[in-house]
Amino acid sequence: MPVITGIASLTHATVQSISFLSNPKFFEQLATTKAAAVMLPARALEHLPSQTPFLVVCCEDPYLLYSRLSQWFEKQRLAGLSRNIHPTAVIHESARIGNNVAIGPHVVIEENVQIGDGVTIGPACVIGRDCHIGAESLLHARVTFYADVRLGERCIIHSGAVLGADGFGFAPDATREPGGWSKIIQFGGVVLGNDVEVGANTTIDRGALDDTVIGNDVKLDNLIMLGHNVQIGDHTAMAGCVGIAGSTTIGKRCTIAGAAMLSGHITLGDDVHISGATSVMSDISKPGRYTGVFPMAEHTVWQKNAAVLLQLAQLRRRIRDLEKP
Amino acid sequence: MPVITGIASLTHATVQSISFLSNPKFFEQLATTKAAAVMLPARALEHLPSQTPFLVVCCEDPYLLYSRLSQWFEKQRLAGLSRNIHPTAVIHESARIGNNVAIGPHVVIEENVQIGDGVTIGPACVIGRDCHIGAESLLHARVTFYADVRLGERCIIHSGAVLGADGFGFAPDATREPGGWSKIIQFGGVVLGNDVEVGANTTIDRGALDDTVIGNDVKLDNLIMLGHNVQIGDHTAMAGCVGIAGSTTIGKRCTIAGAAMLSGHITLGDDVHISGATSVMSDISKPGRYTGVFPMAEHTVWQKNAAVLLQLAQLRRRIRDLEKP
Amino acid sequence: MPVITGIASLTHATVQSISFLSNPKFFEQLATTKAAAVMLPARALEHLPSQTPFLVVCCEDPYLLYSRLSQWFEKQRLAGLSRNIHPTAVIHESARIGNNVAIGPHVVIEENVQIGDGVTIGPACVIGRDCHIGAESLLHARVTFYADVRLGERCIIHSGAVLGADGFGFAPDATREPGGWSKIIQFGGVVLGNDVEVGANTTIDRGALDDTVIGNDVKLDNLIMLGHNVQIGDHTAMAGCVGIAGSTTIGKRCTIAGAAMLSGHITLGDDVHISGATSVMSDISKPGRYTGVFPMAEHTVWQKNAAVLLQLAQLRRRIRDLEKP
Repeated sequence: MPVITGIASLTHATVQSISFLSNPKFFEQLATTKAAAVMLPARALEHLPSQTPFLVVCCEDPYLLYSRLSQWFEKQRLAGLSRNIHPTAVIHESARIGNNVAIGPHVVIEENVQIGDGVTIGPACVIGRDCHIGAESLLHARVTFYADVRLGERCIIHSGAVLGADGFGFAPDATREPGGWSKIIQFGGVVLGNDVEVGANTTIDRGALDDTVIGNDVKLDNLIMLGHNVQIGDHTAMAGCVGIAGSTTIGKRCTIAGAAMLSGHITLGDDVHISGATSVMSDISKPGRYTGVFPMAEHTVWQKNAAVLLQLAQLRRRIRDLEKP
Repeated sequence: MPVITGIASLTHATVQSISFLSNPKFFEQLATTKAAAVMLPARALEHLPSQTPFLVVCCEDPYLLYSRLSQWFEKQRLAGLSRNIHPTAVIHESARIGNNVAIGPHVVIEENVQIGDGVTIGPACVIGRDCHIGAESLLHARVTFYADVRLGERCIIHSGAVLGADGFGFAPDATREPGGWSKIIQFGGVVLGNDVEVGANTTIDRGALDDTVIGNDVKLDNLIMLGHNVQIGDHTAMAGCVGIAGSTTIGKRCTIAGAAMLSGHITLGDDVHISGATSVMSDISKPGRYTGVFPMAEHTVWQKNAAVLLQLAQLRRRIRDLEKP
Repeated sequence: MPVITGIASLTHATVQSISFLSNPKFFEQLATTKAAAVMLPARALEHLPSQTPFLVVCCEDPYLLYSRLSQWFEKQRLAGLSRNIHPTAVIHESARIGNNVAIGPHVVIEENVQIGDGVTIGPACVIGRDCHIGAESLLHARVTFYADVRLGERCIIHSGAVLGADGFGFAPDATREPGGWSKIIQFGGVVLGNDVEVGANTTIDRGALDDTVIGNDVKLDNLIMLGHNVQIGDHTAMAGCVGIAGSTTIGKRCTIAGAAMLSGHITLGDDVHISGATSVMSDISKPGRYTGVFPMAEHTVWQKNAAVLLQLAQLRRRIRDLEKP
């Protein structure tokens, strides 16, 4: 029997791969996969070819088992890597660095930073003064923390993410010229819980006076924008390109699909699910799924419907007139 | 009487804080705040508790006063910091650096760059050839200027911002293969006025032949995209995730709310206000507020309405038929 | 006759400029331009002023000729620059570097990286282990490649772009707490063809198990997000702020206009054109243009129409009732 060296999809698996099946759509791939072993649910057993050439790993939740096994393989890989502090890193003498910390080339760490045990800081990261980074957290290359960011344990921050930049705050100031702006210095910080993941080039602004607060196990994809004083409950996940304006509060276990946009100063309760590209402009207290997307059509069809859309109020009046006895 | 050491919100204020009140919604917080002093408008005086334990700073515009005071506190903090040029910065010998300039670790400054007095350049910034940076401007960590960016005075540029990347210009070129593209080199630069703020990970492309031009006191939030040859008038402000396609011109004192998108080659006049998530596809000359957002609803409700939306032209015909005598 | 030293627009041209005209909208600018020469199509000849002071370069496709000439001028400029490897770059001893490669200050290149002949790597780039960079490719300042990114020849990657960050993959995991997530390690890489351009701060995630694959001559603007296992056909172009969710496949010669959003696990055929700000939630096999945008109006007009929109299903019922004999 071959040694299994990694995980692969059913179609790309080799005789050294373990694979998995959770979506019934892919049952037929079981007939042709070259995998040495396949994790699958009991309901898939009847779809197995009569001569199963692979080891069957029957389990309740193959997707979760796949996830755990992927983590196991990654842990083996990381264990083989050397961990050290690169001599080109510029680290302020007041910084307190834990045990078994790895710091890449060209990193900058400013005064009074605290870094927990087992933290990894990738090349070219910049960590501002007074930041805390919890144990076992991983910052990939080129992450920026402004001052006063406090990150929990086991977090993963991807390249290009910027935590703690100024919130967008200006007071109208017509004293010099009409339409002028006077900057409001942003004194708050950013606080993130444990097990948070922040995607590439995502930005989380610091609070104006109080902190911006991200709960435990919050998962943020790439190119997300969180304004100042946003608060996000535990386990909430957001897909790419989402924007949340300042001072909005989001509950626990919410999902916000890609490119959805939330106005500022609103509140979403727990277990609220927002569809992709939907604009949320007011509070939502009731759990459930909410959507607001103009349905796509061929351009000429869209043109006709869009033209009528701008006469809707008038159409309603015409219907009312027709309804009059 | 205690010494005031900082600004805080009414709810988080301590006996060493000054706070402010401008929104009548928060009048009731006056009864419980621990602040040593509160800036408030005359109309709030009647809402004061009978025994006011804090110093009342009555003023016409407490929000603007709060802004000014925040700047004063920040100025005190910055005055205490040392300013120098870090030895790991790589600065071309032809660069001209003003007085009292601070340059962080791992910065790169290319040939013929001019940096005005009192400028601060954060860690790991890259400043391309022939850039000018006006006096007292502040670049946070990891800002990139390509060649030929000219920045005014007192500007603030946040981490991850990229100014002067190539505009998106390609000529269709079917000489080798149908659908091919031929790159148009982008020779223009980017010119920004005084008092401009650019948010984290925002990108402003260089012009194709002429420059991209940003006026004075323009405020741009995070993750904004400005295409080549965009022109923006003084005092215009844009919230996060806004996109402006190439060669579009925007007037003075406009506001573009979050995630709004403007097509290319259009013109917005002065004092135009675009709501969040709105697509602007044609010129707007009349001042006012403009909106185009599909209203959100529970998903099942949305499904029903969206389905009818695709039959709107047909519905209008049916109404017309009904109206026939 | 003056020497031509560069390209300029008709309005900004000097006696040392060559200019071009392809849009009939600008015919009238021929009367006043100071250009020494103008590339124009045959149909423009009749619009020439009687005394043409400039050299006329009549050609079939002036826009394409302008593109080619812009590349020629750029090539001259680049030929004059020195090319070397900066001493502050940190390059792993196992990396294989081709001939005539330029590497800027503060670059980090990890183990087993292969860099082709004539490649330029701008300041502060980070190139992860096992990456390949094809000949003549150009990475501007501050680009990040995670491990396992394979880039073709003659590609251009702009500042702040992040290639190979983790795809957004989590298995629901309620074993510790309801709503919990278990990370799925992303083992796939990113493969890009030849002549690809990637805009500033755009992110392309690595695949979960198989690779994310970008075809030849694909052009991506700024702040685009491509999820894990996305596949894009040759010559497809996307404007700024587009988001493509995971496992979506896009054909050849498609165009996706600014801020359009595609759901995950869908397929677009060849020659499909998506309008700006349109959400695509299902497969499209038929070539053509597709649109789904709420038409903008003055805010008060929008309010009225949006209110009726939420009653559309009800309106249709009322029309049906009226139609009953």
